[in-house]
Amino acid sequence: MEISARNQIRGRVTSVSLGAVMAEVEVDVSAATIASAITASSVARLGIKVGDEVTVIIKATEVMLGVKIRRGRRASTRRPGLTR
Amino acid sequence: MEISARNQIRGRVTSVSLGAVMAEVEVDVSAATIASAITASSVARLGIKVGDEVTVIIKATEVMLGVKIRRGRRASTRRPGLTR
Amino acid sequence: MEISARNQIRGRVTSVSLGAVMAEVEVDVSAATIASAITASSVARLGIKVGDEVTVIIKATEVMLGVKIRRGRRASTRRPGLTR
Amino acid sequence: MEISARNQIRGRVTSVSLGAVMAEVEVDVSAATIASAITASSVARLGIKVGDEVTVIIKATEVMLGVKIRRGRRASTRRPGLTR
Amino acid sequence: MEISARNQIRGRVTSVSLGAVMAEVEVDVSAATIASAITASSVARLGIKVGDEVTVIIKATEVMLGVKIRRGRRASTRRPGLTR
Amino acid sequence: MEISARNQIRGRVTSVSLGAVMAEVEVDVSAATIASAITASSVARLGIKVGDEVTVIIKATEVMLGVKIRRGRRASTRRPGLTR
Repeated sequence: MEISARNQIRGRVTSVSLGAVMAEVEVDVSAATIASAITASSVARLGIKVGDEVTVIIKATEVMLGVKIRRGRRASTRRPGLTR
Repeated sequence: MEISARNQIRGRVTSVSLGAVMAEVEVDVSAATIASAITASSVARLGIKVGDEVTVIIKATEVMLGVKIRRGRRASTRRPGLTR
Repeated sequence: MEISARNQIRGRVTSVSLGAVMAEVEVDVSAATIASAITASSVARLGIKVGDEVTVIIKATEVMLGVKIRRGRRASTRRPGLTR
Repeated sequence: MEISARNQIRGRVTSVSLGAVMAEVEVDVSAATIASAITASSVARLGIKVGDEVTVIIKATEVMLGVKIRRGRRASTRRPGLTR
Repeated sequence: MEISARNQIRGRVTSVSLGAVMAEVEVDVSAATIASAITASSVARLGIKVGDEVTVIIKATEVMLGVKIRRGRRASTRRPGLTR
Repeated sequence: MEISARNQIRGRVTSVSLGAVMAEVEVDVSAATIASAITASSVARLGIKVGDEVTVIIKATEVMLGVKIRRGRRASTRRPGLTR
């Protein structure tokens, strides 16, 4: 199955931490470690363990961007009561 | 400001497509192109354009994992009416 | 590829509306029509069109629950300034 | 209250698993079991238990689509370093 | 209907921008303006317009936190290739 | 760093509940308490504790709206099998 999620990157599982309901899996892709919080039951169902090759999948609407603050740029976009 | 989102990866903007409300920004990080769908007003507010260095930010709860299907593994986890 | 998202339901595409950046796809599964807002480029990449059989995929952390309000239950959980 | 989330489907709770912070609730709607990961405090606040009738609520921007891979379609959309 | 989403705050609509698929609605709650990107069809279905009283609804798993960077704190948590 | 997330509101942490994988942090902003479910490791990494000043950050695509049901409005938008 091919899925609509725009971001699909291969990597290798480096850690699996299981809680009662949620689990945290860390995946090394080149240049970064991606942390994923999924249900513990999905970890069991897929049999995910350290050393496995997996694909990290992220829908584009979940991806934010950050930029370095450049002097003088923020003045006009600020509103009282909001930190932007 | 340091933020709780676990996944923060530096890259460079390679395309910006503006719609009336939403915008799509593509960011090259090493080994992958990450697509981000954010509001067009955030693109304007941050002044994001091709060539900019940005940080891609993704909350861990938004990251899914995919594994290659291995023969014989899925039999016991299937349920009628669900594709898993 | 088998993916961690807990909810995967087969259905058939009944409408596709394309915007400049985003697209809305409606999928009939038995007993409900599921609306999906994905990027227009994913619709093009996957070639999604009316009549296609697709799988609707939803991560468990994105699913909320609603219950009918029963008389007398809410009194003790209310806080000033919050509508619950 | 009527809410903007496009997808609202009635079902019945079939299991509730409580963790320290998160809880997993499974809801049978016709033709599928939907898994929901919400905070344990919301389960307590709403008094959700097995057998309850609930409404599963999902925002359209959280819904992905998957299609069966058809021979020959993927060749032109692949990029090096990305699994699509 | 009472819903599991932890965060529900009353406010008043101050702007509605419609795109082909998505819409952006700004809601003034006390001390902040909250921006919401929902489908244009939901705006039409609910008849949302400037001046309406609405409830902003946000699932707890979608809320991130940011803290001011304090000198010396970040040194031990940095990893090569990740901006944290 | 300035980030694309449209909603950024300052507040003060009033409670922190730690689970094995996830944590729940409550933040008082004026007029509301915002609940955030983030990984326990992010709470540790940022050193978040009761009394801290933090910024609550929410992407606009994660914000839903609710409106009071007005008599007679819903009749024409209902579909069989869907609760809207």
